[in-house]
Amino acid sequence: MNSIITGTGSYIPKIIKKNSDFLDEHFYGEQNEPFVSSNKEIIEKFVEERRYLEPDLQNSEAGTIAAKIAIEEAKINPEEIDQIIYAHNFGDIRFNDNQSDMLPSLASRVKHLLKINNPNCVAYDVIFGCPGWLQGLIQADSFIQAGIAKKCLIIGAETLSRVVDPHDRDSMIYADGAGACILEKGNNLSKGILSHAAQSFTYDEANYLYYGKSYKVIPKINTRYIKMYGKKIYEFALNNVPNAMKTALDKSEIPISKIKKIIIHQANEKMDEAIIKRFYRLCKAKIPEGIMPMSIQKLGNSSVATVPTLLDLILKHKLEDHEINDGDAILFASVGAGMNINAIVYQF
Amino acid sequence: MNSIITGTGSYIPKIIKKNSDFLDEHFYGEQNEPFVSSNKEIIEKFVEERRYLEPDLQNSEAGTIAAKIAIEEAKINPEEIDQIIYAHNFGDIRFNDNQSDMLPSLASRVKHLLKINNPNCVAYDVIFGCPGWLQGLIQADSFIQAGIAKKCLIIGAETLSRVVDPHDRDSMIYADGAGACILEKGNNLSKGILSHAAQSFTYDEANYLYYGKSYKVIPKINTRYIKMYGKKIYEFALNNVPNAMKTALDKSEIPISKIKKIIIHQANEKMDEAIIKRFYRLCKAKIPEGIMPMSIQKLGNSSVATVPTLLDLILKHKLEDHEINDGDAILFASVGAGMNINAIVYQF
Repeated sequence: MNSIITGTGSYIPKIIKKNSDFLDEHFYGEQNEPFVSSNKEIIEKFVEERRYLEPDLQNSEAGTIAAKIAIEEAKINPEEIDQIIYAHNFGDIRFNDNQSDMLPSLASRVKHLLKINNPNCVAYDVIFGCPGWLQGLIQADSFIQAGIAKKCLIIGAETLSRVVDPHDRDSMIYADGAGACILEKGNNLSKGILSHAAQSFTYDEANYLYYGKSYKVIPKINTRYIKMYGKKIYEFALNNVPNAMKTALDKSEIPISKIKKIIIHQANEKMDEAIIKRFYRLCKAKIPEGIMPMSIQKLGNSSVATVPTLLDLILKHKLEDHEINDGDAILFASVGAGMNINAIVYQF
Repeated sequence: MNSIITGTGSYIPKIIKKNSDFLDEHFYGEQNEPFVSSNKEIIEKFVEERRYLEPDLQNSEAGTIAAKIAIEEAKINPEEIDQIIYAHNFGDIRFNDNQSDMLPSLASRVKHLLKINNPNCVAYDVIFGCPGWLQGLIQADSFIQAGIAKKCLIIGAETLSRVVDPHDRDSMIYADGAGACILEKGNNLSKGILSHAAQSFTYDEANYLYYGKSYKVIPKINTRYIKMYGKKIYEFALNNVPNAMKTALDKSEIPISKIKKIIIHQANEKMDEAIIKRFYRLCKAKIPEGIMPMSIQKLGNSSVATVPTLLDLILKHKLEDHEINDGDAILFASVGAGMNINAIVYQF
C-alpha cells in the first residue's frame, strides 16, 4: 500500500522584508566590484517581497509550529509517530549570529518541544540541499514500505535570512519558512506516493551552491554566506530536472493528463517556467493552464520549506486560483545544493 | 537476504595531541569558576592521548580517505554505489574557524572528490549525534531490504577538535577521525546485519549534549562549543543502552554466547565497562574475557568516527589482542547527542 499524507502544516514568518528595505544596501559582484547600476534597477529584477523569521525564533521552533499543525490535522496521537525527519541545511542559527547549531539535531529539538515521550520515535536530520524535504518524504516512504515505520513526521525548515551576504544581490531571493507533513501507511493502492526519483550531480556541479565570503572584501573577516552561480544552476536545472520529473512520472504509470498540479521548488520563476515547458515537451503534451502554483513573489526561496509550504497553502485554500481535489495527481519536484534533484508523483 | 559489509576503511589523523599539551590551559567549571586543582591533577583523569586532524584538511576530506579504502577493499566499482550516507554533527569546519559548512552536503563533497559520475548515486548527510554512523548503516540496510539500493557507502567522520572549548576540561576527551564501510545486499541468511534497534530520548534528555558558550566568561564573545552534562549522560547511558543492546540481540534470535565482540562508542571507559556489565546481567550471562575492544586511551572520542574506526582496526589486525573471525557475531552499540541510542547485531 502507498504512503499517504494525512496532515500538512506550515509557518510563514511574520516579518515582511520588502524590496524597498534593500535600497540602502551596497551591492558588489562576484569579482568584488561595486555595481554601476542603481539599487532601484537591481531590485526590480527580484521578487516582490520575502519573509524573515522573527529574531526571537530559531529554525527548529518554526519547524515545531508547522509540525504541530500537521499533527493536529492528521488527528494522530504524537506518541504514535515512528520517525521525525527534519530537512535543513544550516541548523539553528540565532539572529545576528553566524554559527550553525545542530547539537542536538533539529529533529530532537522538535520532539522535545512537542513533548513526545516515546523513545522509539527516532528523530534525525537530513542534509540534501533544497530538495531535502522531498528526500525526507522519499525516505519515510521507504521506511513505511519496508515495514520499519507506520507514521512519520517530515519537516523542512530554513532561515536563509541568517546566512545571506548583505552585499550580494542574490540575497534578495532568499527567505525563511517552515513546512511539515504526516506520512502514514495507506490502505488504497491508487492513493498516496506512487513513485519517486532522486539524483545527485557532483562531478562538475558540487559547488554551484556553496558557502563563501562576502562579495565586499572586508580584511580579516572570514564569515561565510550562502552563494550561488545562478547561471550555471539555471542551465543545470533546465537540463536535468525535466528528466527526473519524467522518470518519476513513468514509474508511476499514470498518464501525464492525470497530473493536475506541479509543485516545484521556488528559486527562480523564469527557470521554473522553462522547466515545465521542457517537461511537457519531453512528454509530448501541452501545458495545462494553471498547472504551476507559484509563491516566490511573496515568499521568496525558503529552501526546504518552499515545497511543503506551497502544498499546505493550496490544501488550505490560501493560494488564489489553485486547489487540489480528491483523485488529483500531483507532481512534486525540487533542485538545489548538492546539486540534488528529486521528484515524487502523489495521488490525492 | 541480509546486508553485508564488504569493505571498511578509516583515517586516523596524524597529529597526536598529548596530555602534556594541555598543561598550560586555564580550565573553568560549569559555573565559570576557575579550578582549584592543578592541571596535572585534572589531566590525569582523562585519556592518554587523542588525534587531531591536520590543519589543512577538513572533515569531508578525511571522510573521503576512509571511503576510498573501504571501496578498494570491497573491490567494487565506485560508479555502482547507489547511496552515500555521511554521518556528522558539525559539517566541515576549517582550522581556526567557527562556522559549520554543509553547503553542499559532506556526502556530495565525498562523491565529488571520489569523481563518481553516476547521478543515480544519491548523496546525503545524517545528523543523529554520535550514533550517526550506525544509524546510517541502519538506513542503508532498510534501503537495501526495500530494494531501493544494492550498494551503499556509509561514512562517519568528525572534527571535534574544532568545536572544543579550550577552557573546558571535557575537551580533553574529544578527538577527530573518519571511518567508512561499504554495505551490500548479501546472499546468505546467516551473515550480515541480523537486527537493529534505535531510540531517541528527548523529553528530559535533549540538551545533555549541547552547543554552549565557553566556561571562561569572555564579554561580547558568543562563540559556542560542544558541551556536555557528563554525569547525566553517564546515568542515562547506563539506564538505557543495555536495554537497546538486548532489544537488538533478542530480535537477532541468536544466543548471547554467539556474540564475540561488542564494538561500542568510546566516550568514557568506565561508562562502557558499566554498560557491558549491566547488559550481561540483563541477559543473565557471564562477561566473556576480551569482549570489549577499546581505543579511547589512544584515539579519544571521535564521535561518529569511533565505531567504524574501531571495526576497521580490528578487521585489519591493528588492535592488539582482538580479532574477528568468520562466523563471529558482533554487537555494535552507540549513544550520544539527541540523546540517541542504537545497536546492531552483525554476523561475519
